[in-house]
Amino acid sequence: MHNSSLMLAIDAGGTSTRATLLNTAGECLGYGRSGPGNPVSSGLDRVMHSYREAIEQSLEMAGRALDDFRSLTIAMAGGSTHSPISGMAEAFKTINPSSEVVIESDLLATYFSGTYHGDGYALVAGTGAVCARIRNFSLDRVTDGTGWLLGDHGSGYWIGYHCARAVAADLDGIGPATAMTALLTEQLGLQHSAASFEGRPARLQAMIQTIYALRPIELAAFAVIVFQAAAAGDSVAGDLLSKAGQLLSHSLRTTRSAEVTGPLVLGGSILSSRSVIEDELASELAGQAVFRVPDGLAGAALLALRHAGVRVDQEIFTRIGSSLSALRS
Amino acid sequence: MHNSSLMLAIDAGGTSTRATLLNTAGECLGYGRSGPGNPVSSGLDRVMHSYREAIEQSLEMAGRALDDFRSLTIAMAGGSTHSPISGMAEAFKTINPSSEVVIESDLLATYFSGTYHGDGYALVAGTGAVCARIRNFSLDRVTDGTGWLLGDHGSGYWIGYHCARAVAADLDGIGPATAMTALLTEQLGLQHSAASFEGRPARLQAMIQTIYALRPIELAAFAVIVFQAAAAGDSVAGDLLSKAGQLLSHSLRTTRSAEVTGPLVLGGSILSSRSVIEDELASELAGQAVFRVPDGLAGAALLALRHAGVRVDQEIFTRIGSSLSALRS
Repeated sequence: MHNSSLMLAIDAGGTSTRATLLNTAGECLGYGRSGPGNPVSSGLDRVMHSYREAIEQSLEMAGRALDDFRSLTIAMAGGSTHSPISGMAEAFKTINPSSEVVIESDLLATYFSGTYHGDGYALVAGTGAVCARIRNFSLDRVTDGTGWLLGDHGSGYWIGYHCARAVAADLDGIGPATAMTALLTEQLGLQHSAASFEGRPARLQAMIQTIYALRPIELAAFAVIVFQAAAAGDSVAGDLLSKAGQLLSHSLRTTRSAEVTGPLVLGGSILSSRSVIEDELASELAGQAVFRVPDGLAGAALLALRHAGVRVDQEIFTRIGSSLSALRS
Repeated sequence: MHNSSLMLAIDAGGTSTRATLLNTAGECLGYGRSGPGNPVSSGLDRVMHSYREAIEQSLEMAGRALDDFRSLTIAMAGGSTHSPISGMAEAFKTINPSSEVVIESDLLATYFSGTYHGDGYALVAGTGAVCARIRNFSLDRVTDGTGWLLGDHGSGYWIGYHCARAVAADLDGIGPATAMTALLTEQLGLQHSAASFEGRPARLQAMIQTIYALRPIELAAFAVIVFQAAAAGDSVAGDLLSKAGQLLSHSLRTTRSAEVTGPLVLGGSILSSRSVIEDELASELAGQAVFRVPDGLAGAALLALRHAGVRVDQEIFTRIGSSLSALRS
């Protein structure tokens, strides 16, 4: 048994990784933030570098050494792909050989960033989109989150993909005019030109070459353009966001069970700001405790505490949140 | 000037390449067929191997040698990506140093496989989907054909992609039950199982791993399943084909001009057999001369003749078709 009672919690996401060092009272003592943390999309070497960096920042802020924690709880996407946990456990031994390593679902971590109740729902829409029903502190049902090609209905990727298609259709003359065309072609650095090549507009030809040089998942970045155009009144963009909201609402409705009546936690960049998406979700949010969370770090801390045998109540949950806020500001 | 009057015409597609040796009367004397011929998707080395193979077969059938033709006309996809024509011209010198090389659009070749009229329309739906207006023997307007990520509305990829998403949604419980699920999971070799892993059906988990190991474009192969399920009365599959037909119909309608009233040539595997897609196209086909073609080889031969200064009339056009049919049978 490790002689320290301190724990490290990590929220490992596709674009960034966050870590916090906490004690058994739920007080967060250090915080760190680094790069990509998903081993499936970024590879084990890259993510181990991210983890080490975030861990070292957390320990340094708390004035602690590399072996001053007894357990390492990592929340990561595990629903859609099998994580290389065996190789990872070995790699962690090089950071702290005596620490226990616990892998948790990022969905649970997001949910427990918003509540300490064992039963409820989480709806997360960032690059992907996934919905979960939580029962007795475990994943009872997960819907969607099946990735850009098979699902992620209403996600940032879904919105960005449909943005690119709408702009291509506009340039092609087979779809309606949209303000997204000027925004996207400018972002891609395409020349304004009325020229035509083999019966096709030169600007569409240039867009094709630019888009196919990207990895498909990078289309998620265009979601910002859709929010921007919709806010300025563009109806094609507005319709896309409405449809995204309907798809997310449908996933949530399908995930519900009469036996689980707890709170709903909303996470991910797509749900972080007010938009028409929220209007479409209104009927699902009505008469329901709703909590918005920026990420899954507080929940990863809660899961670390539970693993250490701590019963997390309102007081401890509040302490996690407030101490983390203080460290992050 | 080459002392032979023979020409070689090649129809270079994404999955196969066809070649024919013909004389100035439009009589095809030899025929060859080989592998992938699109340099963008398969690379220059691979396609040069295909071209050489199809050329050698054609010459052997006609009892001719490698330098017994004066020109080489190659029809290939050039609308959506820039072909490496310079490197290709060099590579052809190794086959026949004295032959002239002419690159033509595969769309024109498909169109001229169905008619010798200089004005008209082509609608091609295979893996991709593209529509063209032809005027004075040239591409006047091209719509769609922007690839799997940006367009190809109603194409084989579009149908196969939506098949995979419908099956994932069915397994996930967020979409309606469909007969495509049994057909696709069987084709992918997924085990029947009611087991669940982290709140998600094991069969969906297995499907995710199988699908993401494919190149996206390979989803086009699932189109067959949609035709099969629709023919057996599955409404989800039937709705997908109806929607594909509507999208193709829309592209064709957008491409029309009152000034171009010629025939319509239909090409590609999706339009080669009777299905609900054709019902959706009915209003576009009514009162219009419609020709169906298996590929673009006859049109590549016609373009080779035109390049040699031959005026292709009904007699020559018919001779190309009948001599080619005899060689292929």
